[in-house]
Amino acid sequence: MTEGRQATIKDVAKGAGVSIKTVSRVLNDEPNVRPATRERVLAAAKGLDYFPNPAARRLAGRRSYLIALAYDNPSPSYLADVIEGIMEVCRSDGYFLALHGCDFTAPSLAREMVNAVRESRVDGLVLTPPVGDVAGLCETLSDAGIHYVRLAPSGPTKGLGVSINDRQAAFDMTEYLLELGHRRIGFVQGHPRHGTSRLREEGYRAALERYGLEVEPALLSQGWYTLESGIEAARALLRADARPTAIFASNDDMAAGVIQEALRRGLRVPEDLSVAGFDDVPIARMLSPRLTTIRQPVQAMGKRATELLFENLSSGEHVSTQADRVELLDYRMLVRPSTAAPR
Amino acid sequence: MTEGRQATIKDVAKGAGVSIKTVSRVLNDEPNVRPATRERVLAAAKGLDYFPNPAARRLAGRRSYLIALAYDNPSPSYLADVIEGIMEVCRSDGYFLALHGCDFTAPSLAREMVNAVRESRVDGLVLTPPVGDVAGLCETLSDAGIHYVRLAPSGPTKGLGVSINDRQAAFDMTEYLLELGHRRIGFVQGHPRHGTSRLREEGYRAALERYGLEVEPALLSQGWYTLESGIEAARALLRADARPTAIFASNDDMAAGVIQEALRRGLRVPEDLSVAGFDDVPIARMLSPRLTTIRQPVQAMGKRATELLFENLSSGEHVSTQADRVELLDYRMLVRPSTAAPR
Repeated sequence: MTEGRQATIKDVAKGAGVSIKTVSRVLNDEPNVRPATRERVLAAAKGLDYFPNPAARRLAGRRSYLIALAYDNPSPSYLADVIEGIMEVCRSDGYFLALHGCDFTAPSLAREMVNAVRESRVDGLVLTPPVGDVAGLCETLSDAGIHYVRLAPSGPTKGLGVSINDRQAAFDMTEYLLELGHRRIGFVQGHPRHGTSRLREEGYRAALERYGLEVEPALLSQGWYTLESGIEAARALLRADARPTAIFASNDDMAAGVIQEALRRGLRVPEDLSVAGFDDVPIARMLSPRLTTIRQPVQAMGKRATELLFENLSSGEHVSTQADRVELLDYRMLVRPSTAAPR
Repeated sequence: MTEGRQATIKDVAKGAGVSIKTVSRVLNDEPNVRPATRERVLAAAKGLDYFPNPAARRLAGRRSYLIALAYDNPSPSYLADVIEGIMEVCRSDGYFLALHGCDFTAPSLAREMVNAVRESRVDGLVLTPPVGDVAGLCETLSDAGIHYVRLAPSGPTKGLGVSINDRQAAFDMTEYLLELGHRRIGFVQGHPRHGTSRLREEGYRAALERYGLEVEPALLSQGWYTLESGIEAARALLRADARPTAIFASNDDMAAGVIQEALRRGLRVPEDLSVAGFDDVPIARMLSPRLTTIRQPVQAMGKRATELLFENLSSGEHVSTQADRVELLDYRMLVRPSTAAPR
């Protein structure tokens, strides 16, 4: 074979002394090929670097062509959107996606993840929040030589990641409510152990400060990113003597709870209370009134993260040896009927 | 070794003439073991039937300990719930779960699925609707020796499955509305190519007939299991001269659309119009008013389906050779504030 020319199936057949049909059967891992013949074909294919498809590459033992998504109990639509984005890249690159459900509070998290990666032979991991933010996890993965990429990473750990600017997005939403004329804007905080919670609150605070407004404690209420915690938070906020004219909940599930509690108290949305959320999960469009929110491009984030992971796998370099490489994707503010100027 | 005693790692080490540490490293597929040593350990382990963990079983080439979930664009919460149920069994049995996104309308669906199963070496498949109902698919999988189990199967194909009694559940919901006093009950039909759509409509029709009521064409409106199709269907139903006093949408997403359209027309829910759904996805609790619906135990269905698949894998028999083996799980009717007696 001439140097530099790409090997063909003919070259492999010739090298192994078998028919083209036999090469095809071996490289597609079909049954009814004698072990000795299989060995000869694989040796010839290796020598010629001829591995036309994932099955053949797997046979050659180079990679498993399997990656895994590690998650802990995210919102259903977040999980489904991330999966759709990852699958898009997997399909075109001949990879399979496995799932790794975690308990992000488990002390054994890092050890179990390393074991699972070894047992399942996955080539790399996509980590969703809050799993990716667990202290020490990324370091352990790096030390074990495991490639990973994080969605919405926060904290000091360096490495590959894809995110939106949560802080700026929350600033924009708060500024929009301020521009409508609201001056008492309540804020429902997210789960204290999720990195995004801090960023979104920072954005809210920064916008109030920009307008010279004080962040009164009575305007803040703790939530946990769940419907029920949104209801509880709204109860606290709406009980205040000078109740807010707008409430910005730092995710949509909590905003749904705020709307329920407001209606239960006989307040109209948006006439008596404007309500805004964050994420644009499907329920945002299903609520009555439809919810003003920030569209986080979760599917695109999953897709881009997977592309970065594959690039990293191909390059062979380990992420931890790199400086911080977090790409920010665009978010969008969606103004819907749940917000209006105060009366 | 005494006949009948379970082999231990010591037996394997002795049989292979290596240290216990070396056996452990081979069976956990760790690096830095010489190929000849590895072969000797695996041969000794095979002879003694000593395979303590999935990695060791995989090395022995018995199974991949990987199953796959085949789906086509279900609602996010359905997908997330099914996954959670499957993962519960996978975790306890040492299996991994891979995802296989499909286009259930693609003519090449069956061929591509067989290829994907072979490439990824999965041991078996869980099929969600409507993928599991595609004509000829199950037969092709059976012919290829691929084990599968279906969620909510419908149609004539036999085999393993887990479902609820969709027909009876829709009957119960309609009967509940009739008992409240409603006599004009609209029905929003589901996606025409989903097997559940027909069953749910049959239940609705049967209940009206039980009460001696005619199923007028003006009471039926086609939907596609989406929010938007629910809005469209509600427009058609509420435009009628004698508009219904209750609308039963055959899934929750469409019921959310019915509520939106009712409120847009100035109708109060439930005072002017009762609205009921089906599935109890998370949005059912987030709507205002909260939605009366049928709770489908999707997570339990995913769990039970996976148990059946594993039993079938262990037995070695192929599903198609069996009579129909569909297990029915219990559903629950959840009465919430979106329904009331007609005024």
